[in-house]
Amino acid sequence: MNEPSIGIFDSGVGGLTVYRAVRERLPQEKIIYLGDTARIPYGTRSPATVRRYAYQDAAFLYKQNVKLLVIACNTISSVALDLLMESFPLPILGVIEPGAKRAVKTTKNGRIGVIATEATIESGAYVTAIQSIDPTVAVYTQACPLFVALAEEGWHNHAATKLIASEYLSSLQSQGIDTLVLGCTHYPILKEVIQSVVGNQVQLIDSGACVAEEVETLINNSKLLVSTTNNYLDSFYVTDSGKRFCKIAELFLGQPIENLVAVDIWEENAKATDNKLDLFAGLVQTNL
Amino acid sequence: MNEPSIGIFDSGVGGLTVYRAVRERLPQEKIIYLGDTARIPYGTRSPATVRRYAYQDAAFLYKQNVKLLVIACNTISSVALDLLMESFPLPILGVIEPGAKRAVKTTKNGRIGVIATEATIESGAYVTAIQSIDPTVAVYTQACPLFVALAEEGWHNHAATKLIASEYLSSLQSQGIDTLVLGCTHYPILKEVIQSVVGNQVQLIDSGACVAEEVETLINNSKLLVSTTNNYLDSFYVTDSGKRFCKIAELFLGQPIENLVAVDIWEENAKATDNKLDLFAGLVQTNL
Repeated sequence: MNEPSIGIFDSGVGGLTVYRAVRERLPQEKIIYLGDTARIPYGTRSPATVRRYAYQDAAFLYKQNVKLLVIACNTISSVALDLLMESFPLPILGVIEPGAKRAVKTTKNGRIGVIATEATIESGAYVTAIQSIDPTVAVYTQACPLFVALAEEGWHNHAATKLIASEYLSSLQSQGIDTLVLGCTHYPILKEVIQSVVGNQVQLIDSGACVAEEVETLINNSKLLVSTTNNYLDSFYVTDSGKRFCKIAELFLGQPIENLVAVDIWEENAKATDNKLDLFAGLVQTNL
Repeated sequence: MNEPSIGIFDSGVGGLTVYRAVRERLPQEKIIYLGDTARIPYGTRSPATVRRYAYQDAAFLYKQNVKLLVIACNTISSVALDLLMESFPLPILGVIEPGAKRAVKTTKNGRIGVIATEATIESGAYVTAIQSIDPTVAVYTQACPLFVALAEEGWHNHAATKLIASEYLSSLQSQGIDTLVLGCTHYPILKEVIQSVVGNQVQLIDSGACVAEEVETLINNSKLLVSTTNNYLDSFYVTDSGKRFCKIAELFLGQPIENLVAVDIWEENAKATDNKLDLFAGLVQTNL
């Protein structure tokens, strides 16, 4: 029987930046990746809907013989980490804490900026995480809803992307931040444009790279390390056709994914519905 | 008992441009609108997934005492109209045919451009519809994936939108088109920018406005007209929290929506799964 794998999931391709970082740090481990491409993006949805989808994603991976779950998505980490930790009996790592820790270590003037999806920003997760480490740090946040679409379009070096980045980032710049958290796993794709807009005096923090470091530490310090080098190929699952995923994945990973499988994870819906945690609070048959 | 209503649905808010047009033409009718905001956008998804989602949308409205269904979404009209017509015994109108007819009537030089989502363009639905009316017409198409995100961001008059529109539309301009179909119900929101880029010599065709005309004709020529003026408020349903929908709806309609209700339409999933039409062709457990 195969040794258990590391499960990594995201709403789509963004989490591949986390996959790549974990892959480089732990070459002997097998990784199973799930991108819920049939319902991407999560970042503009309500917390109740993100929690429902995240439960289904995690339940799918939980059944694949995984020993550790990495939430390679800031939106899910922001609003559903607690739910997943209560629901599944294995170590689960989100990207918020590792990114927050690194940002606090990095800043010199105590002024940190965070850019992310609307859902992540509205959750206040980064502000809470950063200020629970150091309450004297000032945190300035900005949602950048168009960045995901621009990254997926492959326009990481386009004049329009620079113009949009300038607009989104101007308020953070005027706050004199010296550290900027890329609080969405798509954003590292736009790193160059973002750096050119904010200038080299601002340090960019890639939360995905930070969580990969924590995964390595956890694996090495626990009994989770594989006993023999694993020769199996990593597995990649998507919930919609893989055509678009493959195209963007190649852009993100610098090489094509060959063994991509499409799966149906909606069978988990009934469970999510029955779950005693009130996943649908404020959602079903309620006047808004 | 209430008289039956007109059902209009879309993946999100884009279809409100169709709602508005139908509302103006048929003030005595009650309209029920569904936006599948928990799974928007449809335009970057595979045909199999769009068909599955469209079936669930239509099934939800079918149970609400509707006499006519309007698919206020080009992507659904392109890939799922046949499925819905086979599945539900009531008149169903899509936006492709009405837009195609108007475009053929409008063009003078026989060169028509079509802009739409990736899914609509890849389906070839507009090319087929236009050339089945007049095979001598040349049709040039262009997918504009960022337009939906820009419209939803409310950037209908932003420099970045103009830059992106110029890039998307340059190939169509060089083909000398005199007519351009806005083949996505979000695009009328960006009408001014699009017109300024292509110039006033190009006529823009709003497919949503065209289908509203056909709805009026169908209602007036059949026994579907309501017998008394309906004093009920229109109903609006969404599948995710209404916060974001309300914000964008106000932008689209010029006034707020007051009676918005969030619903769970996933109960239709089992039916869609059992449906003998192969909704999941190429999707489930298949190497891609």
